[in-house]
Amino acid sequence: MNEVTNLLMNHRSIRHFEDKPLSREQIETIVLSAQAASTSSFVQAYSIIGVTDKEKKAKLAEFAGNQSYVAENGHFFVFCADLHRHDIMGQMENKDVIPAIESTEKFMVSVIDAALAAQNAAVAAESLGLGICYIGGIRNDLEGVSELLKTPDRVIPLFGLAIGYPSKKNDQKPRLPLQHIYHENEYKQDEAVYREELEMYNKIISEYYDERTGGKRKDTWTGQIAGMLEKQTRMYMKDYVQKKKMDLR
Amino acid sequence: MNEVTNLLMNHRSIRHFEDKPLSREQIETIVLSAQAASTSSFVQAYSIIGVTDKEKKAKLAEFAGNQSYVAENGHFFVFCADLHRHDIMGQMENKDVIPAIESTEKFMVSVIDAALAAQNAAVAAESLGLGICYIGGIRNDLEGVSELLKTPDRVIPLFGLAIGYPSKKNDQKPRLPLQHIYHENEYKQDEAVYREELEMYNKIISEYYDERTGGKRKDTWTGQIAGMLEKQTRMYMKDYVQKKKMDLR
Repeated sequence: MNEVTNLLMNHRSIRHFEDKPLSREQIETIVLSAQAASTSSFVQAYSIIGVTDKEKKAKLAEFAGNQSYVAENGHFFVFCADLHRHDIMGQMENKDVIPAIESTEKFMVSVIDAALAAQNAAVAAESLGLGICYIGGIRNDLEGVSELLKTPDRVIPLFGLAIGYPSKKNDQKPRLPLQHIYHENEYKQDEAVYREELEMYNKIISEYYDERTGGKRKDTWTGQIAGMLEKQTRMYMKDYVQKKKMDLR
Repeated sequence: MNEVTNLLMNHRSIRHFEDKPLSREQIETIVLSAQAASTSSFVQAYSIIGVTDKEKKAKLAEFAGNQSYVAENGHFFVFCADLHRHDIMGQMENKDVIPAIESTEKFMVSVIDAALAAQNAAVAAESLGLGICYIGGIRNDLEGVSELLKTPDRVIPLFGLAIGYPSKKNDQKPRLPLQHIYHENEYKQDEAVYREELEMYNKIISEYYDERTGGKRKDTWTGQIAGMLEKQTRMYMKDYVQKKKMDLR
């Protein structure tokens, strides 16, 4: 353990920020840290859109299901998978890059590139004493988000990242047992053991909620997540991504 | 700037490692750091497979196009998008989660979750004085990788992460200009400016290669990447992912 791993392990999402904007220097440090992350074969297949316009932030908060901290924070970033740049490059170099950039492989590459950059941004922000919250909620309405941020074809806004000075700190939710996430040499084959690990984790989560709510809530993890997944949200995504000319072949 | 942002901005991929395995404590610190990353709605849709078996590592190196550092390192991790766990959970809770876990939305969630965790692992490793290299090359043959690591349906090995004690340090390649990656309030609409930024970056990259190779190599970035994308690699990916019952609807 050291200062950095301490910082990583102490992460929690922040959903209440002071009304104090980030400085230009902070924004640049965060973006440069994001850019320093690894990128698949040097393709740099992502873009970051900083949103400062109040109306746009209010609209994004609405898309995200009225999460106030999408509008109220120090700075709001949107991380995008971006192969538009590569389309332009193909034109500049007179090379047919279209089959590649329309492939599932390059869709995955662009999503991974954007996420690696975002996590560096998150870590950089936390090292500056700021709090962060990923906002997957913008995916409730990516048509709306694309229109608002004027993203071209082959650009998919993936998630927001709200950053700011924390005004309230949340607890840290216990993660899955290490031995359940981490396999050695092969994926765990014994389903009975797999289920036991989930049951063990259910006890931990249930106790966590019990303590935190004074007995009002005792959800298990599998109950909570299976209940959420049963609801089938954002089922328009395949059409949207393909309309944006990605993940097509 | 602080110690953490310095560490992030000084990242470079390491492709030569000493013959010295990571300790159990180092592995656990890295995995726990990975797990501390944000996860979409608490779904924790990823798994990590550590590979220590020499034959398996040799095979993975072969899949990755004979990259020696896939076999020779301190520890080799494979990060997987994982919705198998959620399939099991649906069975445990008697909820129909299948349409959700077969959606493009949840495929994206699982890829993002895995990448956020991986980047925390990478940062943790570098903070311990270790070097890292992402290995997208395992995606050359995911059928082979799945068979080798016995991953079930709804698990997609995304990339490897080779970690170890660096024996040779590479240079750091300059990234795209900040103003090209970072947009404000809307995606840059002026294509002429967009292309100028790419041309400006081409000069930077060309000078970088020129200096580094004593004039032998003067590639531009757009030339290098468009040339790579023209080649259409890993076009089997869509079939593979769908065969694994992800990104289906």
